[in-house]
Amino acid sequence: MSSSTLTAAPTLTARYRAVRAHSEALCRPLLPEDTVVQPVIDVSPPKWHLAHTTWFFETFLLKEHLPGYRLFHPQYAFLFNSYYNSLGSRVNRADRGTLSRPPLADVYRYRAYVDEHMQQLLAPYADEPAAAPFAEVLELGLQHEQQHQELLVTDIKYILSTNPLAPAYFPADAPAPAPQPALPPARWLPVPGGLGQLGYQPAAGDAPGFSFDNELPVHTVYVAPFELQNRLVTNAEYLEFVEAGGYEDFRYWLGEGWELVQTAGWQAPLYWVRPEQPGGAWQRFTHHGLQPLDLAAPVTHVSFYEADAYAHWAGARLPTEPEWELAARHFGAEPAGGNFVESGLYDPAPLAPDADPAQCHQLLGDCWEWTYSAYHPYPGYSKAEGALGEYNGKFMVNQLVLRGGSCATPASHIRLSYRNFFHADKRWQFTGIRLAR
Amino acid sequence: MSSSTLTAAPTLTARYRAVRAHSEALCRPLLPEDTVVQPVIDVSPPKWHLAHTTWFFETFLLKEHLPGYRLFHPQYAFLFNSYYNSLGSRVNRADRGTLSRPPLADVYRYRAYVDEHMQQLLAPYADEPAAAPFAEVLELGLQHEQQHQELLVTDIKYILSTNPLAPAYFPADAPAPAPQPALPPARWLPVPGGLGQLGYQPAAGDAPGFSFDNELPVHTVYVAPFELQNRLVTNAEYLEFVEAGGYEDFRYWLGEGWELVQTAGWQAPLYWVRPEQPGGAWQRFTHHGLQPLDLAAPVTHVSFYEADAYAHWAGARLPTEPEWELAARHFGAEPAGGNFVESGLYDPAPLAPDADPAQCHQLLGDCWEWTYSAYHPYPGYSKAEGALGEYNGKFMVNQLVLRGGSCATPASHIRLSYRNFFHADKRWQFTGIRLAR
Amino acid sequence: MSSSTLTAAPTLTARYRAVRAHSEALCRPLLPEDTVVQPVIDVSPPKWHLAHTTWFFETFLLKEHLPGYRLFHPQYAFLFNSYYNSLGSRVNRADRGTLSRPPLADVYRYRAYVDEHMQQLLAPYADEPAAAPFAEVLELGLQHEQQHQELLVTDIKYILSTNPLAPAYFPADAPAPAPQPALPPARWLPVPGGLGQLGYQPAAGDAPGFSFDNELPVHTVYVAPFELQNRLVTNAEYLEFVEAGGYEDFRYWLGEGWELVQTAGWQAPLYWVRPEQPGGAWQRFTHHGLQPLDLAAPVTHVSFYEADAYAHWAGARLPTEPEWELAARHFGAEPAGGNFVESGLYDPAPLAPDADPAQCHQLLGDCWEWTYSAYHPYPGYSKAEGALGEYNGKFMVNQLVLRGGSCATPASHIRLSYRNFFHADKRWQFTGIRLAR
Amino acid sequence: MSSSTLTAAPTLTARYRAVRAHSEALCRPLLPEDTVVQPVIDVSPPKWHLAHTTWFFETFLLKEHLPGYRLFHPQYAFLFNSYYNSLGSRVNRADRGTLSRPPLADVYRYRAYVDEHMQQLLAPYADEPAAAPFAEVLELGLQHEQQHQELLVTDIKYILSTNPLAPAYFPADAPAPAPQPALPPARWLPVPGGLGQLGYQPAAGDAPGFSFDNELPVHTVYVAPFELQNRLVTNAEYLEFVEAGGYEDFRYWLGEGWELVQTAGWQAPLYWVRPEQPGGAWQRFTHHGLQPLDLAAPVTHVSFYEADAYAHWAGARLPTEPEWELAARHFGAEPAGGNFVESGLYDPAPLAPDADPAQCHQLLGDCWEWTYSAYHPYPGYSKAEGALGEYNGKFMVNQLVLRGGSCATPASHIRLSYRNFFHADKRWQFTGIRLAR
Repeated sequence: MSSSTLTAAPTLTARYRAVRAHSEALCRPLLPEDTVVQPVIDVSPPKWHLAHTTWFFETFLLKEHLPGYRLFHPQYAFLFNSYYNSLGSRVNRADRGTLSRPPLADVYRYRAYVDEHMQQLLAPYADEPAAAPFAEVLELGLQHEQQHQELLVTDIKYILSTNPLAPAYFPADAPAPAPQPALPPARWLPVPGGLGQLGYQPAAGDAPGFSFDNELPVHTVYVAPFELQNRLVTNAEYLEFVEAGGYEDFRYWLGEGWELVQTAGWQAPLYWVRPEQPGGAWQRFTHHGLQPLDLAAPVTHVSFYEADAYAHWAGARLPTEPEWELAARHFGAEPAGGNFVESGLYDPAPLAPDADPAQCHQLLGDCWEWTYSAYHPYPGYSKAEGALGEYNGKFMVNQLVLRGGSCATPASHIRLSYRNFFHADKRWQFTGIRLAR
Repeated sequence: MSSSTLTAAPTLTARYRAVRAHSEALCRPLLPEDTVVQPVIDVSPPKWHLAHTTWFFETFLLKEHLPGYRLFHPQYAFLFNSYYNSLGSRVNRADRGTLSRPPLADVYRYRAYVDEHMQQLLAPYADEPAAAPFAEVLELGLQHEQQHQELLVTDIKYILSTNPLAPAYFPADAPAPAPQPALPPARWLPVPGGLGQLGYQPAAGDAPGFSFDNELPVHTVYVAPFELQNRLVTNAEYLEFVEAGGYEDFRYWLGEGWELVQTAGWQAPLYWVRPEQPGGAWQRFTHHGLQPLDLAAPVTHVSFYEADAYAHWAGARLPTEPEWELAARHFGAEPAGGNFVESGLYDPAPLAPDADPAQCHQLLGDCWEWTYSAYHPYPGYSKAEGALGEYNGKFMVNQLVLRGGSCATPASHIRLSYRNFFHADKRWQFTGIRLAR
Repeated sequence: MSSSTLTAAPTLTARYRAVRAHSEALCRPLLPEDTVVQPVIDVSPPKWHLAHTTWFFETFLLKEHLPGYRLFHPQYAFLFNSYYNSLGSRVNRADRGTLSRPPLADVYRYRAYVDEHMQQLLAPYADEPAAAPFAEVLELGLQHEQQHQELLVTDIKYILSTNPLAPAYFPADAPAPAPQPALPPARWLPVPGGLGQLGYQPAAGDAPGFSFDNELPVHTVYVAPFELQNRLVTNAEYLEFVEAGGYEDFRYWLGEGWELVQTAGWQAPLYWVRPEQPGGAWQRFTHHGLQPLDLAAPVTHVSFYEADAYAHWAGARLPTEPEWELAARHFGAEPAGGNFVESGLYDPAPLAPDADPAQCHQLLGDCWEWTYSAYHPYPGYSKAEGALGEYNGKFMVNQLVLRGGSCATPASHIRLSYRNFFHADKRWQFTGIRLAR
Repeated sequence: MSSSTLTAAPTLTARYRAVRAHSEALCRPLLPEDTVVQPVIDVSPPKWHLAHTTWFFETFLLKEHLPGYRLFHPQYAFLFNSYYNSLGSRVNRADRGTLSRPPLADVYRYRAYVDEHMQQLLAPYADEPAAAPFAEVLELGLQHEQQHQELLVTDIKYILSTNPLAPAYFPADAPAPAPQPALPPARWLPVPGGLGQLGYQPAAGDAPGFSFDNELPVHTVYVAPFELQNRLVTNAEYLEFVEAGGYEDFRYWLGEGWELVQTAGWQAPLYWVRPEQPGGAWQRFTHHGLQPLDLAAPVTHVSFYEADAYAHWAGARLPTEPEWELAARHFGAEPAGGNFVESGLYDPAPLAPDADPAQCHQLLGDCWEWTYSAYHPYPGYSKAEGALGEYNGKFMVNQLVLRGGSCATPASHIRLSYRNFFHADKRWQFTGIRLAR
């Protein structure tokens, strides 16, 4: 983790409370039964997310820094460690959904117990958070919980989607969708090339505060001039690809993607439901249950393979990671006004029809944008000592970088330099497509 | 199903209510979270058992025989059909544990709704149950629910056992085990050979009432004289086999069993926990959580492979199905006094030290006894028409017959002619070993 | 193995030479490349069969009984042991097809070396074979090689069948098939029931000589009267089942069979090739390459699941093992005149149009007939001491008995009491269907 | 493929003949049986390589450009197409080892037939090869065959290595290894950073001639100054890592690498054989069979995971692809004098003890050097039209770039801009480790 000062917040304890409360708010519409299941290995039970984020504070802060602290339960470290080999054995990831105990109520008790002790730990530094010897780890714990909040949104969606009853997360009905015309064609915006600086740079406009170690060090890259589309690819555009037979023509696909299309039987993005009659209306599973496909909204829940195949079909390509970051800096993208989790939509939103086509829109929020860059260490990268060194570094192979955050990301969690990463076949995150050429 | 008259019961509705209530009583100690998970494909979520047994009554009785009956929910047939191809598609068996909805509360509402309508259906026949045109199917529904009650006991045990917290099903502590000496050696009892009749025979001593179709027709078999042990193999005896290296010596094992021992790493029966120090005490996971191994109790949770290997090591063999049934008739075995689910032990019980060694004990109750007979149709067997024809017949290959019922079987559910069947590798039922030679 | 005297043969060494020569004759039409591959785990490379049968003589006879014998190669025991745990580690069965060495030429050298030493071993007993202390093991070695000769015929067929070039084993063209009308319907022949003796009984008509241990001891069984068809089910009859949608209707199938039909995509027996145009002619892959389906010939290469499903569809059932053997004794079936490997057809043959319908035909030869009996030990069965005890006993679970031998079996190898066994899904042997009711 | 002129060669037909003859020379020491097997999916049967390379000329040259050409066999396209979806269906890659036919002799006949027709095709352009309308495709065919020649060397090694007889490829014994002291420590050589040009650049020193499309277009990159070791990591150095417990300590490993180490049980590079006694000598399987580990030689047959873990342990890292190429240009690396397949060693060679430590050695030849760069398209990359567009582009995800060629690469096949690529877990190529920092 970078050296950092804590981001401005009313008070430290208030910020801690706010982050922690958001996780619980996300789970409030769920039944205890919903918090247990794990329909695929990628999706963890919500109960597990609630406990694991708590374990992080207990393990890295209370155990280390609060004298006399007693563990809530001696076996929770075994149950709720995610992947830290340094911290001993743990429940096999694929088996998280077999654990009915501790029940949800106990997990909430665990959270309350840890929160209470965290308040004790934080109290002396109320006015001067940065003076806390554990300031960086605390910040990491909060960022970590925000990452799991995004997973809560996407994992809950997946869990509900696999249920034949197609239950809605939101108690209220979805607002009746306004009849929405497809957007005008996207416009290509030129981005000048040349040398640029990649990575977390508070000095150069990034909000001072926190970054992960994988965003560092800042380093020079060279990029040739290129063009970027002024908005994300829409459902209408992607539907054209689907209906033109895009999923039946190997020529658009990377080899491993094509193999997957065939073995998994993919015919459209995740959550799309083909009309029963030809010519009927496509639907999508959402947090409101099944809804008509909103043609003007950005396409989402696509794998890298689909994003790349679409780009080929459209005669374009995906941007690289340096291109994306330099373009975002060039266009002055800012989190403010973006469609993040705070919007409560839990879905990418259509561009306003009157949006200025000369601007570059939706760079932050809405969808994580697949780049055609591997998630590898930046030159000079070095990971932290001890267990926290396992946070990011060990994943730096076989994954691709995604940029910009999504409608499930907390707004305070995103930065221009933020590097997300997933394997090329993953679709359950709010992933989308930005074209370059 | 055989032609049958309903078993004597105070009234028909009372019997229906009693059977239905028992399923709910079994689930009472569970939390909603416990009712969702499916740690292995064999083990169904308790919530599913509660709903599936209800679906049986709804599908085969209410839909057919109660005019104007409206389904509780149009998709429950898809959710809670177990394996009836005749009744359309259904949730893949391996995916039962991914379904958080309907929640447990809805399943109870479903049960109440169906029970209420069943009372309507049954009312006209209160005094003359056998006159009901659906009498046989009703009886089958009750027997079916009893079968699932046994599965509830064993599936709940498995679910709790996989949890690192080793939670106990019983709220109260287990009674302190009395120090119990190992039993005296089992005695061999001769059984005369000759021609005999196999199958459900009310005329010959079987209680008149119900049998499954797989117990019919009654037919003649010839059996040579043989000897049977007067009680089940105990934990003490089986422990000798374990400690003599029985799991490391291929010579005792069937080929496929030996392969499984190696790939699965079996070293003892399911639920046994090896002492951490050599010479320490073995434990067993039970409905009371982890408990010391009770040496005098019958060994249980063994596969056919283990039962057969033990028999080889002990210089004996397993009985065949005809041997078992003819012996049970010869010794006059009766359910009364057996250790069934009504004992509340949920574990096989040691033989009383003063039991008469000239009698044959534990034939009914305690443990299902593996026979060395395949589960095949009796000569002249024919299955029912329609969906209920799928009840038993389609499983008649690659499984072995078990006899006698267990400590998880309702006493009213067992008969001398009852044929249970499992694959040779299954261990999560209360299976035990009776030796023959 | 039973106590036995060697079967009458010109001389002992002549018999040894004849059996050994037949294996090599079977491989003569093959190229070295054909002898290496293993397209599925069930099918062993011909090179392996040639070497493994030789290893049997080396291990159980020369090493034990020929003083001063030196192994041909120290590692061949590791390479060519099939499944004898008693004899140490061995090449994983699934990896037999990865071994290019030793080359075929070395395997023939190995055979010549062992044969030469076997002649030394046998010479002193030329006139009095039964006096040899190893007489029984020698007989077992010869029977063992005959079993592998049958596998050579079926494995070679499978190997060639998987090749897109559809190469023929026979150098000459197949004889032009005479236009052959379908046979008249099969006739049901009554078989009286009662007590009977099962197992190898030289006293009661079985040729004195050899039997496997699994055919013993002779024991009493009771069988109710039944009827058996007077011939095997034909391709014409089975084709009706196929064309009536038999492979699309779960009602005819055992549950595990139906699952397999769907996952494996079975639509017809192994080697059948559906006509490209509806109404076109079906073909079959044979040792002559692709040939038109011979409607009058017995259907072959069907699994137990298919045999059982066909029987259901036809309103009949498969016989049990005791029924089959007692019927064969009742009808006086004899190997003489049967269609065995010596016919050179390598395919079951149509019944002669003028065959007496009151006789029961094709009981021996043509096709192994699936019985609805598990391959379990006979009452009182005990296996041999030492490594040879692994010959038969350890396979006695999860397999079904087949009776009667096939067109790939040496005539001198079959008996009325002979028990063959395969898993219910196997199709690459010459398996066929005999109906009972 | 880039526009190119054919590389200088005595004559065009002579060059064609030379390349084609080398493939056959590589297979000369093999037996027909060796050319059939496929012990793992990565390794193709040598027979297949010989035929597939021939199919390439037949399909892309003779069929297109030689009027009246008749296919050697109508099904060879199905049998010997590797992965070109454009050209129709083909044998599943995993099933190549199940095909005994066509036999090796037919494959040689196929080669002769195609070679003869290729001579006809080439004759008119003997003096002016570049004038041939198919000049580029011809060159691609030759380069393609050279790639398969490298695979022949490594696949043959793998095939022989899996055989318990550990057969040697070379008929003659290996030369007795001179007692060779470990080399002095490697020295770090500085490489200046800055802007550079990546890709195939005949103008800037690359031999004019051929490049693959994936080496284009030439483009600008920025690289910070760094240091590179002056030679490859040796067996002695890697052995230290092994003996220091490198394979037991997760901290050195990428997460997916660590998982693989555990599931696959890796304890050393592929082909290393641990001494039976502690303190004994390690061995390696080579084309001469098992040989003592040559401590001064470069370590080879390591995966990317192992290369990266070693680098971590050694306090260094792997170079990126731009670093590697710019360094190679900086140090003036040239194929001449490198250890390529022409050396006949088929193994990387130790650095001469008197080599100048101020020079950078072994950049070309000996071992393919893993870079920490993904195999992705260069900016502006576009693939060819038609089937040849499948040559490189569709593999551009989830693989890492390797550079420099190996002891199995034809010297005329390598360039500074040559991009090889494999998945991170592959070890059967001659892969090695170059450290950077």
